[in-house]
Amino acid sequence: MRWQYFPGHATVPVLAAFAARDRTISENMSKISKISGFPEWLPEHKLLENQIIGLITAAYESHGFTPIETPAVELMETLAAKGVVDKEIFQVSRAQADANAEAELGLHFDLTVPFARYVALHFNELQFPFRRYQLQKVWRGDRPQRGRFREFYQFDIDIIARENLPLSCDAEVIELVDAAFRAIKVLRHSIKLNNRKILQGFYRKLGLDDAQRKQAIIAVDKIHKIGRDGVLKELREHARIEAADAEKIVAFATHRAPLRSAAADLAALLPDDPWCAEGLAELVTVGSLLPEICLDSVEVDLSLARGLDYYTGTIVEVCLPDYPEFGSVSAGGRYEDLASQFINKKLPGVGLSIGLSRLMELIISENLMPSAKRCPTTVLVAVLNEEQRAQCNAAARRIRAAGTNAEVYFQSPKLGKQIDYAAAKAIPYILFVSESGEFEVKDLSTKEQKKVSSLEAWCTSLTAGI
Amino acid sequence: MRWQYFPGHATVPVLAAFAARDRTISENMSKISKISGFPEWLPEHKLLENQIIGLITAAYESHGFTPIETPAVELMETLAAKGVVDKEIFQVSRAQADANAEAELGLHFDLTVPFARYVALHFNELQFPFRRYQLQKVWRGDRPQRGRFREFYQFDIDIIARENLPLSCDAEVIELVDAAFRAIKVLRHSIKLNNRKILQGFYRKLGLDDAQRKQAIIAVDKIHKIGRDGVLKELREHARIEAADAEKIVAFATHRAPLRSAAADLAALLPDDPWCAEGLAELVTVGSLLPEICLDSVEVDLSLARGLDYYTGTIVEVCLPDYPEFGSVSAGGRYEDLASQFINKKLPGVGLSIGLSRLMELIISENLMPSAKRCPTTVLVAVLNEEQRAQCNAAARRIRAAGTNAEVYFQSPKLGKQIDYAAAKAIPYILFVSESGEFEVKDLSTKEQKKVSSLEAWCTSLTAGI
Repeated sequence: MRWQYFPGHATVPVLAAFAARDRTISENMSKISKISGFPEWLPEHKLLENQIIGLITAAYESHGFTPIETPAVELMETLAAKGVVDKEIFQVSRAQADANAEAELGLHFDLTVPFARYVALHFNELQFPFRRYQLQKVWRGDRPQRGRFREFYQFDIDIIARENLPLSCDAEVIELVDAAFRAIKVLRHSIKLNNRKILQGFYRKLGLDDAQRKQAIIAVDKIHKIGRDGVLKELREHARIEAADAEKIVAFATHRAPLRSAAADLAALLPDDPWCAEGLAELVTVGSLLPEICLDSVEVDLSLARGLDYYTGTIVEVCLPDYPEFGSVSAGGRYEDLASQFINKKLPGVGLSIGLSRLMELIISENLMPSAKRCPTTVLVAVLNEEQRAQCNAAARRIRAAGTNAEVYFQSPKLGKQIDYAAAKAIPYILFVSESGEFEVKDLSTKEQKKVSSLEAWCTSLTAGI
Repeated sequence: MRWQYFPGHATVPVLAAFAARDRTISENMSKISKISGFPEWLPEHKLLENQIIGLITAAYESHGFTPIETPAVELMETLAAKGVVDKEIFQVSRAQADANAEAELGLHFDLTVPFARYVALHFNELQFPFRRYQLQKVWRGDRPQRGRFREFYQFDIDIIARENLPLSCDAEVIELVDAAFRAIKVLRHSIKLNNRKILQGFYRKLGLDDAQRKQAIIAVDKIHKIGRDGVLKELREHARIEAADAEKIVAFATHRAPLRSAAADLAALLPDDPWCAEGLAELVTVGSLLPEICLDSVEVDLSLARGLDYYTGTIVEVCLPDYPEFGSVSAGGRYEDLASQFINKKLPGVGLSIGLSRLMELIISENLMPSAKRCPTTVLVAVLNEEQRAQCNAAARRIRAAGTNAEVYFQSPKLGKQIDYAAAKAIPYILFVSESGEFEVKDLSTKEQKKVSSLEAWCTSLTAGI
């Protein structure tokens, strides 16, 4: 089945399931509640999330990005520094605190504001260019019925530098997010690229002023959500743009071209404007620094605008062609000013954020990784009777020392029950220890059982995939 | 130097440093504040934390423990289910919400309450025995001046079962935490073990009633914080225990014995009481299931009481002999009732929590891992000029494909500047690409520079430690 995605974070069926479970009252005990908008996975799905985190982390570290982590809370004045809407912030206070006893705190709603505050606070202890990744939950006080998560993971990378940041960094961030999605493997992805300078140049050439250009960018950013007519309406009503110009803006946004041929395909479309020329040249430079395998995924899409004010050049989104209604799963771009609200330094940067929880929710709800491990255990050591438990423990220790995860069954009921347990957890092998100390292994997928003369050699054969 | 540890979470020098930095006002910009009690590490320390998390996780997964994660928030009624003191809870609310618009939420203050709620909510979807690990931040609204973190990581493991949980699970959890600390390597650790049944039996034999026994456990638990006289005072004043009996209780708490010889060493001390006998038998059984290497670390310590009400048998703490003032870095035990406040099921369990943030703070402040990596990059590819950047990128891609982390310098200044950057980040190798495409590698520790004919073979030699 296909979900109907809201223009937001979660899906209708998932929300319906949340609602149905919102108040599970157990027989005679306290109420147990699932809180709408705060996702919680089953163990096998958390294991899968950790595997995906591991793949993305390995990609980021392979390019030398280093982890940072900030507290979940910031001062409210820090969170408000970029003029964000207060009502989306969750405030934090001690249950019985004096109102004036401590500074007002709030849960961070993204990782960009905490990153900027972190860089300002630790400025003299960081090496520039500073290449960091950051995986943390963020919290947004959206109304739950709008179909959005209120707590979710974001997985960000950014490169920032002092004064100047070359375009090779834009290319590196795109190469890296492409590599990360390639590593996850289960989902086809495509990368949409644009450059704000092209949009700004085109809008300026139409005679729009600064404020109108900002409004136009915000309107065009919604084209896949509110449609062509919705954008035209916003352009006319919010940005006070003439109908004919609005039509030109929407028509301009329909153009796409593979990054490989963007220079040839788009040159004729662009007005003779220095900003447009610069934007196109930047796209071409970025393309020249990307590897061939990545270029296969990247398309210049003039409808890509990104709503946020602070982007100044490259803008990018990662989409899933098999789930067009899902929207972007990662987005970012180039900005000229990370932290001037906190520190008197020019810090241009380029970065991307992966919406990990949204991605996980899609993978889980569509069952895109059906063969993923359901628990970390590779070998269940069966226990025939309690007298042999120490022997079973010793066998499990040898298996672990050989690099294979093993668990010893906690009791010693009939073997059928132990096999059922292994099957329910999808543990692939059961080890039996005979009274004389010999080992046999049962492969639960093939049902074959065979003697094992050396536990260590057998573990090696497992990891070698024999 | 030696820190003077408060009986709490953080150290005096660290807190002083926090205070000094609490209000760093940059020249002409907004205030940047470090919020007291919310630790934030520099990048190299976060990298170290991740490495330690990886070691502990590998130990837990080697025994088949599976990860779970719960939201940061729970309903206040869930958090209050165990009768915890409200004022230590951080409440969460939308900044501009109607007071009655949504359920009251709070940040979890430990991982046990969320785990119990999780098990109750997902009961029919879990396999029992359920072996889970959980690494998350918790928040406690302590007054910051008391020297405690208000946001910190806990790393918990528990095994829970339906109806009955054998003592082998107590042994496994102890074996596992011992293995985890052995994997971290930098700190000598010791494990203190006791059994609540021994304490309960001894106290009952003195004629203490149920309420007095609870009070006695709470008092004895503080013996290393408030001293012998403090405990005597509490026993007399809070538990209304006769002075002579209080003396006996404190004297009893002075006994220690290696677990290996506990049966022989303690038998004569214990009164003839079935609870004492059962407690000692349980200690002996647990010892019989531990591997030799672990037994080297475990001592029965009758002063160990654990303050929490719900422990019923085995109680355990991990201490650091080189930092006796630091207190325990991990603690836990056996309980008979995980979740009866949420679900009508008997779920006995045994578990442990590692205080990861406290451990990290000790490792950082005492510089216990001076040779840890300062960033993930192994090879910096130097760039002689922008014309060769694509060539440098291609070399970096080959190095990454061979499993080695590589970063390309973002600009092409004089080599000295690039070498300084590598040195500041403690990147061990710099790769130079000549105009004809040949490679040379400089080892920054030995200052040796040599030709490399195959990048792939060189990477293999690095990982093989040659």
